[in-house]
Amino acid sequence: MSMRLDPWGHFAVEDYEKLLKEFGIQPIDQVLSQYSLEHIYFTRKVIFGHRDLDVWFNKFLHGEKTAVLTGFMPSGYPHLGTAMVYEELKYFQQKGVFVKIVIADAEAYAVRRENRNEVIQRGLDFVAHAIAWGINPDKAEFYFQTEMPSSYYRLIQMFSRKVTQAEIEAIYGDLAPAKIIAALTQAADILHLQLDEFGGYKYVIVPVGVDQDPHLRLTRDLADRFKHELGFERPASLYHKLMRGLDGNKMSKSRPEYAIHLNESLEIAEKKVINALTGGRITAEEQKRRGGEPWKCTIFELYTYHLIRDDKRLEEIYYECTTGKILCGQCKRNASELLKQLLKNHQDSLKEVFESRLIEKLVKKPLF
Amino acid sequence: MSMRLDPWGHFAVEDYEKLLKEFGIQPIDQVLSQYSLEHIYFTRKVIFGHRDLDVWFNKFLHGEKTAVLTGFMPSGYPHLGTAMVYEELKYFQQKGVFVKIVIADAEAYAVRRENRNEVIQRGLDFVAHAIAWGINPDKAEFYFQTEMPSSYYRLIQMFSRKVTQAEIEAIYGDLAPAKIIAALTQAADILHLQLDEFGGYKYVIVPVGVDQDPHLRLTRDLADRFKHELGFERPASLYHKLMRGLDGNKMSKSRPEYAIHLNESLEIAEKKVINALTGGRITAEEQKRRGGEPWKCTIFELYTYHLIRDDKRLEEIYYECTTGKILCGQCKRNASELLKQLLKNHQDSLKEVFESRLIEKLVKKPLF
Repeated sequence: MSMRLDPWGHFAVEDYEKLLKEFGIQPIDQVLSQYSLEHIYFTRKVIFGHRDLDVWFNKFLHGEKTAVLTGFMPSGYPHLGTAMVYEELKYFQQKGVFVKIVIADAEAYAVRRENRNEVIQRGLDFVAHAIAWGINPDKAEFYFQTEMPSSYYRLIQMFSRKVTQAEIEAIYGDLAPAKIIAALTQAADILHLQLDEFGGYKYVIVPVGVDQDPHLRLTRDLADRFKHELGFERPASLYHKLMRGLDGNKMSKSRPEYAIHLNESLEIAEKKVINALTGGRITAEEQKRRGGEPWKCTIFELYTYHLIRDDKRLEEIYYECTTGKILCGQCKRNASELLKQLLKNHQDSLKEVFESRLIEKLVKKPLF
Repeated sequence: MSMRLDPWGHFAVEDYEKLLKEFGIQPIDQVLSQYSLEHIYFTRKVIFGHRDLDVWFNKFLHGEKTAVLTGFMPSGYPHLGTAMVYEELKYFQQKGVFVKIVIADAEAYAVRRENRNEVIQRGLDFVAHAIAWGINPDKAEFYFQTEMPSSYYRLIQMFSRKVTQAEIEAIYGDLAPAKIIAALTQAADILHLQLDEFGGYKYVIVPVGVDQDPHLRLTRDLADRFKHELGFERPASLYHKLMRGLDGNKMSKSRPEYAIHLNESLEIAEKKVINALTGGRITAEEQKRRGGEPWKCTIFELYTYHLIRDDKRLEEIYYECTTGKILCGQCKRNASELLKQLLKNHQDSLKEVFESRLIEKLVKKPLF
């Protein structure tokens, strides 16, 4: 059976190896052996695949103008899955790469049919959280899709000339006008930075959840088709695993009870952790004897993606679990403490960001 | 069999009565008996149908802000069919209505896949011809679709939310991404004037060839759907008959040998007229006896649409033809003289327009 990635769907990706093969995403290993990419998301294979990261990194090392760009759909509230992308952006920014963040408000309105004012307010919240997470606003730009000048929209019109029904249908299984426009708008988001008007960043890397790959494939094809006319280079991309919700299914804004939101109260965060799905055995007795299964555990995922920065400490936890030295109750309490600390730090920063009224200066609000 | 109007097709509309019934276009007669609309296109039923002309005219008479808007596809060169629209715009302008002219360059590029530089140059030519035809540039505005500010494009995005695949497919029989975007862009053309930013012209009338009605229907539906959100009123529209080419089929930019172009050399125009399809009989003998059939004659169409302004003189010609008093050869020579005079006057004006370098000041050229 052929796999289809649906960026608008909500299925969890289980078999990353299969994805690599089926869609021609490159495994991260080769690049890791070549270049020094020291973030834990690389060493832990959270970022498991890429397209042209090596090409992009080479340009970066040779001092070419490079940027990292990604987009946020301002529906729901930023959660720990969102924070994975913040984390990646922060990593590249600290290496000296220009950061651009898109608020996909046009798509939220047209495809998801969300209330417009809410979408704008949430978009601003996503920016505030990004800064609170540690993205330096002096070396980043943020924009709403609906506040772009006409040359950006011009790209959407141009792209429509060189894309077929069959292509969009193959990717999305659907030709709703709103989706076609959303898809071409995303392509404009990714490619517009290459225009002189927007800084002329020829080498752009896009870190995304693997469910967004169809957009990247379309955009890379469009870059090829407009290479002559607009001088576009293909964007590079990075794919991280999709963080699961605390019930073991995909973490989703539409199932808030299984996600940890960045503005979650510490008490509720704690309760969610205590109720989370683990890799524990049916009885304490059995777990002490056979050990737990951390590869099934959403708490171990929290450790891996966010709570434990030290690889050695993470290995210890893994060992303690698989050998039955620690049971889920204790492990959850440990995770809960770390998580509350993380959230508290973030929320303190967030409060400062809001109090500084920085966001209003940083982001141009759409007119309607 | 159900009729389908295809704005991208090239079929001649034969049965206007049927169109009125099938698509709910209102016949012009009722409005003519109510209001004084003195242009020969009204009295001669060249403009045979409308939607909400009475509503629009009432607003106009009560001093509301009204505008007339139409678009030109800058492929090929302006011909006598194009000039029918210039003529209508001029009529409304002389009554005091604000004129807005769209150059559909985005559509020419994306749907028709024309060369971009040629499209822009031709777009400027369409504007120059409009002014040469008598449209006062001080009371008109001209724009390229690709040079509009983002709030115009924002409309396209918004419209995509409230339009279904089925609707676009029912109208165009096709869901090519370029056509979907072209359709929504045309809706933005027609509706954007209602926004304060673009003058707040709430009552807009759109004179078009009847083949463009599908666009109007979609736009009127969109106006209804965004009435609450954006305060839109439905646009009114006027439908003129499609001028036939000199072979009796639809006059089309893609069959230049059967069209009279506004920049045609007088010699070639003459030759085309001499070779035109008439309503003449097989022999001169028969024609003298039975008379000609002016309702089949492309020369009589030239008289009706452009060459004879005086209704009495037109009736005389009709009488001379149907009674066999004049034969096609003589009639063609008469038409040819009138046509050459018309073209000469127009081309003299056009030369002045070009020499004045007015166009460069009037129209903002797209960047890419």
